[in-house]
Amino acid sequence: MNEALIYLDPESSLSLQTQIRQRLVDAILKGAFPRGSRLPSSRKLAEQLGVSRNTVILAYEQLIEEDYLESRQRSGIFVNEHIRMNRVGSHETPEIEAATDGLWSRRIRIKTAQKSEFQWPANWQQNPFPFIDGYFDSSLYPTAQWREASRLALGTRLLNEGTVTEGDADDSALIEEIRTKMLPRRGITAAPDEILITIGEQNALYLLTRLLADASVTVAMEEPGNPRMRQLLKQSGSRIIHQPVDEHGMVINSNLDSAGVIYVTPSHQVPTAVTMPNQRREALLKKACHLDQVLIEDDFEHESNYLGQPHPALRGMDKENRVVYVSALPKVLAPGLRIGFIVAAPPLIRAARSLRQQVIGRPSLINQRTAAYFLSLGHYDAFMARLHQEMQLRWHALRDALNHYRPNSIVTIPNQGGTVISVRGPEDIDVDILAREAAKRGILIESDTHYFAHRKSARKCFRMGVTSIPTQRIREGVERLRELMWDLSKVEGVMLAEDDPHLLKGSELKRALSGASIIYRTVYSDPCVLRLLEDGRMQGTAGHANEDRDKGRWWCEGDLWYRQWNRWAYAEASGYHVTLDGQHIRWYNQSGHLVDDAILDRPGEDSWPADK
Amino acid sequence: MNEALIYLDPESSLSLQTQIRQRLVDAILKGAFPRGSRLPSSRKLAEQLGVSRNTVILAYEQLIEEDYLESRQRSGIFVNEHIRMNRVGSHETPEIEAATDGLWSRRIRIKTAQKSEFQWPANWQQNPFPFIDGYFDSSLYPTAQWREASRLALGTRLLNEGTVTEGDADDSALIEEIRTKMLPRRGITAAPDEILITIGEQNALYLLTRLLADASVTVAMEEPGNPRMRQLLKQSGSRIIHQPVDEHGMVINSNLDSAGVIYVTPSHQVPTAVTMPNQRREALLKKACHLDQVLIEDDFEHESNYLGQPHPALRGMDKENRVVYVSALPKVLAPGLRIGFIVAAPPLIRAARSLRQQVIGRPSLINQRTAAYFLSLGHYDAFMARLHQEMQLRWHALRDALNHYRPNSIVTIPNQGGTVISVRGPEDIDVDILAREAAKRGILIESDTHYFAHRKSARKCFRMGVTSIPTQRIREGVERLRELMWDLSKVEGVMLAEDDPHLLKGSELKRALSGASIIYRTVYSDPCVLRLLEDGRMQGTAGHANEDRDKGRWWCEGDLWYRQWNRWAYAEASGYHVTLDGQHIRWYNQSGHLVDDAILDRPGEDSWPADK
Repeated sequence: MNEALIYLDPESSLSLQTQIRQRLVDAILKGAFPRGSRLPSSRKLAEQLGVSRNTVILAYEQLIEEDYLESRQRSGIFVNEHIRMNRVGSHETPEIEAATDGLWSRRIRIKTAQKSEFQWPANWQQNPFPFIDGYFDSSLYPTAQWREASRLALGTRLLNEGTVTEGDADDSALIEEIRTKMLPRRGITAAPDEILITIGEQNALYLLTRLLADASVTVAMEEPGNPRMRQLLKQSGSRIIHQPVDEHGMVINSNLDSAGVIYVTPSHQVPTAVTMPNQRREALLKKACHLDQVLIEDDFEHESNYLGQPHPALRGMDKENRVVYVSALPKVLAPGLRIGFIVAAPPLIRAARSLRQQVIGRPSLINQRTAAYFLSLGHYDAFMARLHQEMQLRWHALRDALNHYRPNSIVTIPNQGGTVISVRGPEDIDVDILAREAAKRGILIESDTHYFAHRKSARKCFRMGVTSIPTQRIREGVERLRELMWDLSKVEGVMLAEDDPHLLKGSELKRALSGASIIYRTVYSDPCVLRLLEDGRMQGTAGHANEDRDKGRWWCEGDLWYRQWNRWAYAEASGYHVTLDGQHIRWYNQSGHLVDDAILDRPGEDSWPADK
Repeated sequence: MNEALIYLDPESSLSLQTQIRQRLVDAILKGAFPRGSRLPSSRKLAEQLGVSRNTVILAYEQLIEEDYLESRQRSGIFVNEHIRMNRVGSHETPEIEAATDGLWSRRIRIKTAQKSEFQWPANWQQNPFPFIDGYFDSSLYPTAQWREASRLALGTRLLNEGTVTEGDADDSALIEEIRTKMLPRRGITAAPDEILITIGEQNALYLLTRLLADASVTVAMEEPGNPRMRQLLKQSGSRIIHQPVDEHGMVINSNLDSAGVIYVTPSHQVPTAVTMPNQRREALLKKACHLDQVLIEDDFEHESNYLGQPHPALRGMDKENRVVYVSALPKVLAPGLRIGFIVAAPPLIRAARSLRQQVIGRPSLINQRTAAYFLSLGHYDAFMARLHQEMQLRWHALRDALNHYRPNSIVTIPNQGGTVISVRGPEDIDVDILAREAAKRGILIESDTHYFAHRKSARKCFRMGVTSIPTQRIREGVERLRELMWDLSKVEGVMLAEDDPHLLKGSELKRALSGASIIYRTVYSDPCVLRLLEDGRMQGTAGHANEDRDKGRWWCEGDLWYRQWNRWAYAEASGYHVTLDGQHIRWYNQSGHLVDDAILDRPGEDSWPADK
């Protein structure tokens, strides 16, 4: 603080002493002079300001009296350690702030985004059950490897290349790594002049909407879809077509015909996480060629396919250079990492580079070179394989927990895996209320309402992600979420009626189940059959080709039916109340909550329908 | 490459084999499959593509025949190591490229910057005399300290804070360092909600012009002034007032009255490097308050004041929160570092933060935290002091070299130091041609033409910076630049006429100089007097208070006048031809080039005019 500058206005009607006091109080209240910090000596400050030493001494004395400053013997004048908390840091009174707001709102010429953008709470890591997609728990970050890459990038070689300070060219090492290692896996071949590095995916989409969208252009995007892209398009003034999404992603039909630009997320649709099959991709490309449309393909989560064969990116199928491909390095590589890239035709890349120069200059070359080293040292491949494996574990854990605790709740089952599942909540609860209540219990889920341009009242769907929650927390999180739903919902918490005429008891229970099959579907829509053998053994098959099998045993105790699998349902023994109405079997847990229902088939009786 | 994806079009009229060949050739030509890399086995590729193995084998064989691939016994199929260089990496033929350009220029909705933006050559470090301002030779970077800060920032603590992934808040540690350490030195007190981090200075100016300038707003800026700001203002569609600059920076007059926003660089005017005195700052602020104008104060080079007392920033004098302050961390802290910041009224900061979210998301928190550690560990202060010292040495070396080799060439002498000097070139040479010719000799100077909105034909001025050239190279660089000017210019290379009637010879020479004083001005406009005592001693005084003094000796040999200072003029003995026409003395070097001229005063003769 010894070098702090204080400006005194020679024309002010206030005395120099008063001005000094004003300036010091202002600096202390704003926290610019932190509590406990030492002020310059009166001699020094007087010299610096060109005033008499006495003027400074008087100002200091007054401030000591008012408890802003304190004098410590033989050490000097300090900002009071005990200055009242509520004084410091608050900058303007609400009245002044409102006035200033008015002034500036007149001066600010553009509307910036609404405040309502969805945000996870900043303290999400303190929540025991953060079902978040896109943030990563700190155990996943490859900190040591990134540090090594960072150390290498900060070597003097980069400095001596000279290019570090000049021009708009990206780090050629990073461009090479992206085009020879990352892009071929997506079926994309690209020359160096077809790639531009951006500050993360957001910046890429910003540059592209600035370049390709304005009031004269119609842009189609998915509904529900990426809210940030919708915001950017709104700002651009372009007309937006909100194109519906089904279990294969964006629907391709004649609604799209009037679009000049189509923004699409074929790899993992945002927010439903479904993957667009090749056939639909081909139809989309064909249409785009026919109508001379530009496609913006957002492929941000391309590394998380593990259920099926990966599909090549749209751009890999594009022979006319009309697909603009956007992706990013995974955020989990380093805290706050923001490296995205655009792959497109050279003229568009040139324009985007020129716009990028205006908007940000060039993305930090240290960061670019660090990423290049991380890739070239093989850390990226090794890390992504590990991450992949971990995400697969977690995703299956979430799917299995939903199957166990909330059957029939999954909206669409992604056929490529991913890191998120779209889930249906209780019919009678608004999902925003559900998410808010869940957060109070430490369970973070994401209502899907903010992905819709046209917000419907009382939506039911939410997203559960696995990038931020360790596998061992998933089951408990889902179980607690179910409890919450039972607490909140009237239609969900179906209870066994005390006088239910169909309730099976004692020997009646045993007789009804012995030798029967129970037929239903898993939460992920696979058919599933349980066979209850007469000797107490139990066999289960699931999947369209019965690819998932398990064994176990069942028995009756009093009026309860017990079952225990070797693997399924966490291999735990559970007892249920059972009702049977014709072929319709329901089972309730011991607190009386309905757990699931199905078709009961007994050999020799009427054959059961193929589907429930 | 084993995981590369190849997309085959089932509806294509081409055979699968042909499609495979096309895709592979494309990938090889674009360099996506680097030379010498190995292809997947025919079995594996056939399986992946769902085609018969024979189809793949046939495609491979054809490509081997055409020298794209080569087969190595027992190791597999590889991309040919010796594939012709000119095939690889070139993406499109010029014809195709021209056609694509046409298509995209129709699709791209905004005009991006002209290509003519001034750029230093990428290989500037290979030039022996880079008189560049703003780039730094690699010896200056505090690499070890930055690495330490980077290592700390990559610690897991940051990860566990959670905020790393969430929201639009900047790193609070960096905000604290800026507001308690950097800003008080500029006389600025700021609360945390008055500061926003940006991707360098460019990004700050972009956000501000987007927010504050549009077709309905008039913006004033300096002429000559920052070309990047001019470009941004042009894009915004606002009307621009080009306000002239004198030796005290932007001229304050009624031309400014119609401006809503005034962009100004008071600390070191771009490009002239002059500093605005406090009196003019006060006048500017007064006018702004009176006319309700917003001031954007660009304070990018504030750390390089070392000649005079630093002036507080305009924002430090502003009582109405109408000054928007823009600055950046010095680029020399780390290669490619891009951290800038805006200090302004909270409503403007909120709008800028919201716009920043759209444009880039949030600037990398690793970089922010690294900078915060660098500051908090005291590296910044120590480093800036060292840098300061080094720049001061270099700047004085440049000034002295110009004084020695090109007297009267400095346009205005900055009163605060800095890292650049504005220099006048020969009258008859266009400065762009001069700069181009100088670059051929390894001397990089910057023509000032690109700082002007209205380019005048045949400008004469250029800038010489010292951030990138070591002190010991400066003298030689200036000397060689002078030689170049002599070679190019007709009016500069004034030569001694063989029959000059005023040429002093032998005893005549000695008689004329003995006991005389030579009176002139230094290149930096200080008065300077040399006294040639009769006993061969020589005394020199320079400066308005004669603060710079040196001694030396002089003598004559044949028709040449020799002199040697103890410190001045590099303490070298030099011999000159001398002419005397009345009181007007000129001296020429031994090749006959005019070096300088002055007034010769002999005691007892007519008194000489106060100024030359």
